[in-house]
Amino acid sequence: MSLPENLKDYFQEHRTRFIDELVNFLKIPSISSLPEHKKDVSRAGEWTANRLTAAGLQNVEVMPTDGHPVVYADWLYAPGKPTVMIYGHFDVQPVDPIEKWTHGPFDPTIQNDRIYARGAADDKGNLLIPISVIEAMLKTEGQLPVNVKCLFEGQEEIGSPQLPKFIADHADLLKCDLIISADGGQWGEDQPAVLLGLRGLCAMQIDVQGAAGDVHSGLYGGAFLNPIHALAEIIHSMHDSDGKVAVQGFYEGVEAPGKWEREQMAKVPYDESDFLQEIGVPETYGEAGYSTYERMWVRPTLELNGIWGGFQGQGTKTVIPSLAHAKISCRLVPGQDPKKIAGLLEAHVQKNSPKGVKVKVRVSESGADAYVIPPDHAGNQAIFKVHKELYGKDPYYTRMGGSIPICGILLKTLGAHTVNFAFGLKDENVHAPDEFFRLSSFDRGQKGYGMLLAELGRWKPEQ
Amino acid sequence: MSLPENLKDYFQEHRTRFIDELVNFLKIPSISSLPEHKKDVSRAGEWTANRLTAAGLQNVEVMPTDGHPVVYADWLYAPGKPTVMIYGHFDVQPVDPIEKWTHGPFDPTIQNDRIYARGAADDKGNLLIPISVIEAMLKTEGQLPVNVKCLFEGQEEIGSPQLPKFIADHADLLKCDLIISADGGQWGEDQPAVLLGLRGLCAMQIDVQGAAGDVHSGLYGGAFLNPIHALAEIIHSMHDSDGKVAVQGFYEGVEAPGKWEREQMAKVPYDESDFLQEIGVPETYGEAGYSTYERMWVRPTLELNGIWGGFQGQGTKTVIPSLAHAKISCRLVPGQDPKKIAGLLEAHVQKNSPKGVKVKVRVSESGADAYVIPPDHAGNQAIFKVHKELYGKDPYYTRMGGSIPICGILLKTLGAHTVNFAFGLKDENVHAPDEFFRLSSFDRGQKGYGMLLAELGRWKPEQ
Repeated sequence: MSLPENLKDYFQEHRTRFIDELVNFLKIPSISSLPEHKKDVSRAGEWTANRLTAAGLQNVEVMPTDGHPVVYADWLYAPGKPTVMIYGHFDVQPVDPIEKWTHGPFDPTIQNDRIYARGAADDKGNLLIPISVIEAMLKTEGQLPVNVKCLFEGQEEIGSPQLPKFIADHADLLKCDLIISADGGQWGEDQPAVLLGLRGLCAMQIDVQGAAGDVHSGLYGGAFLNPIHALAEIIHSMHDSDGKVAVQGFYEGVEAPGKWEREQMAKVPYDESDFLQEIGVPETYGEAGYSTYERMWVRPTLELNGIWGGFQGQGTKTVIPSLAHAKISCRLVPGQDPKKIAGLLEAHVQKNSPKGVKVKVRVSESGADAYVIPPDHAGNQAIFKVHKELYGKDPYYTRMGGSIPICGILLKTLGAHTVNFAFGLKDENVHAPDEFFRLSSFDRGQKGYGMLLAELGRWKPEQ
Repeated sequence: MSLPENLKDYFQEHRTRFIDELVNFLKIPSISSLPEHKKDVSRAGEWTANRLTAAGLQNVEVMPTDGHPVVYADWLYAPGKPTVMIYGHFDVQPVDPIEKWTHGPFDPTIQNDRIYARGAADDKGNLLIPISVIEAMLKTEGQLPVNVKCLFEGQEEIGSPQLPKFIADHADLLKCDLIISADGGQWGEDQPAVLLGLRGLCAMQIDVQGAAGDVHSGLYGGAFLNPIHALAEIIHSMHDSDGKVAVQGFYEGVEAPGKWEREQMAKVPYDESDFLQEIGVPETYGEAGYSTYERMWVRPTLELNGIWGGFQGQGTKTVIPSLAHAKISCRLVPGQDPKKIAGLLEAHVQKNSPKGVKVKVRVSESGADAYVIPPDHAGNQAIFKVHKELYGKDPYYTRMGGSIPICGILLKTLGAHTVNFAFGLKDENVHAPDEFFRLSSFDRGQKGYGMLLAELGRWKPEQ
């Protein structure tokens, strides 16, 4: 298996344009979680649709949902061949803390063969790879080795709240044999991986109110419960001293990975001091009895994503704040239902709220089931083969601790599994300041997608 | 005892000008805790000095410190009479949450005989009262019944860090028999009080760092300790389940008030449901075995004034933040040393910090000793008598939970006690949005200061 020369040439000839396109795409601040950027998310959808049309795809459509839109396109002229659907997202994470960015997050900057911007790796850079490969194949060969559908969404970063309904409503349109997710990454710059599973997600906000308004901590201090104290108590109650989540029922039904997979996981090299340096923490910490990989990949978590209340300025302000807030998200594993877990958490918060404050839990509409794919699935076998050729070595079998909600939704609704084929790398500051994407990954991704589509053209899915 | 007619007339004739002056004074955003307002604090000092000169005081001077300036003035032509020093402050608290203000905090607005602005009650309105009375006495009588010194500072709201040195350096200049504090308030619109004590203060910030930067809560969640979890654990460790401060040594040496004072305190009416409504909390809470007044007045506290870390926007951001912060202040009572308590807290934080995060404590330079005055002090007796005349009823004997650092400093350095004679009221949103001051309190305060200075003219302090 190798890439045809004319495809290689096409990638090289058009490289500058492809990168210019990525720069333009990254200029759109399509932050799906912030209402003030709603129009920007739509703009990014329009941009994607225009790019798909330019690539030669057909039936391109920006399709509305009750939230951010979905972009669909297809090319269905390979009779008898499998139909693969390529998935990605054109929305991005917020940018705060904005002051920690070296360049403007929406002012894409290329330095040392890296492109810096919010969304560079997650997911705009990765999403453009298969589009450019489809363009190259159609321009050079006039056809694709498989039937292709594209499903690009604008709400992945908020947990895809409207996607389940959208997919159910358009199940015929989206019917396919395999989904290839262009959202994700590889193990390392020289080490590929086959991804066997993702964690699910549920999220909520806790609002604690003490007094009706902020009051003077001298005049009233000691008389009633400070909402920050109450919030700290609630948060502290959520983990036991061994790092386990202390919410009743949280681990009920959790499915452990099989023996073969645990063996594969144990084969993935882990160097504690490298890991500590990568993250910049003094030591690892978490649930006893599991390796760091297991805690990140196959065990559920409860993490505080934010907390705030009262005075945050310089110096001292002697006030007892009226309100204190926290944002929480849980990563879930197979056997855990996001709605059920959110309910357990809500009950835990109410049960562990001290008297003297009013506590409200607002569960986010977003939520995602955990997702697993059988290791011997034909899609995994094709990816294993392509990676071996592309990197010159066997890929690792891994899971990922993050969530791609649509994987679970697509499996449930369309009966098709999703494989990961994307080229982000761990050090690329995804969800953090100074996010970037390597242009070398862009090049490698094009070769990889060229080979993968050809390889899948040889697959005969059972009907 | 009653107020001379010509003084009454003067107050009435010049009322509009006095209020205009207050409006101009309140327009200066003299927030002492924020470095960007340093010049405004100085401007407020200059304004005060000019006002003192206009009132007929002498030796008016804006005197520098290593922080915000002090304003001094005197009138010393009453030989054989006591020397009283009037104290107040021209700095104000920060204004956040700014969005909760009905009018701009530095755009003074008069509605229903109330003037709304940051600093209206605390302390600009109260500070202008004795100045206007001195002006009235000098213009109508040509003299004052006592020798007067004025000491107005610009750093009360940050705990007066430079004042101790300033007072020690100028002990001769500031020598006096009694200090009258024009910073504080009365029990109610129709109920005066004689204030027997104030709590002290110490403050600090805790900074907790986990990873070197913010990281994706999916990719890394479960691998290391989230700094918000660590901060919640530290905060939760600071109180036991009975509402007592759980910092080792915190209550060591705490002096309880005497029997007579506890009896007086118990005479002050307390209505739980009125109190709950005043603050807007569902119930009171605190150290077991003490009344609400006792918890606010004679027992020390540890309160969180602010907390922040990670994502605070709308929606969801699945990040594990690098940093989490908290601001803490303690109210202290006689027998507690602010520096020692800060040290105990720092030790507590270090001892209760979980492994896996870096924790830093930064103790604020500000700090105040608690302060008490003997109930039978001549100053208290004069105030009791004036209040009885002014309000037509006996004042309560109370303490106040807040801190006026200079009271302790003046006693220590000059050997003179401070009495409170000011007219703020509890509902005036001091340190909170929509702070205001009643113009009726301004009028009453003028009458009160007129009578009090006359009454103190009859006092023969032991030398």
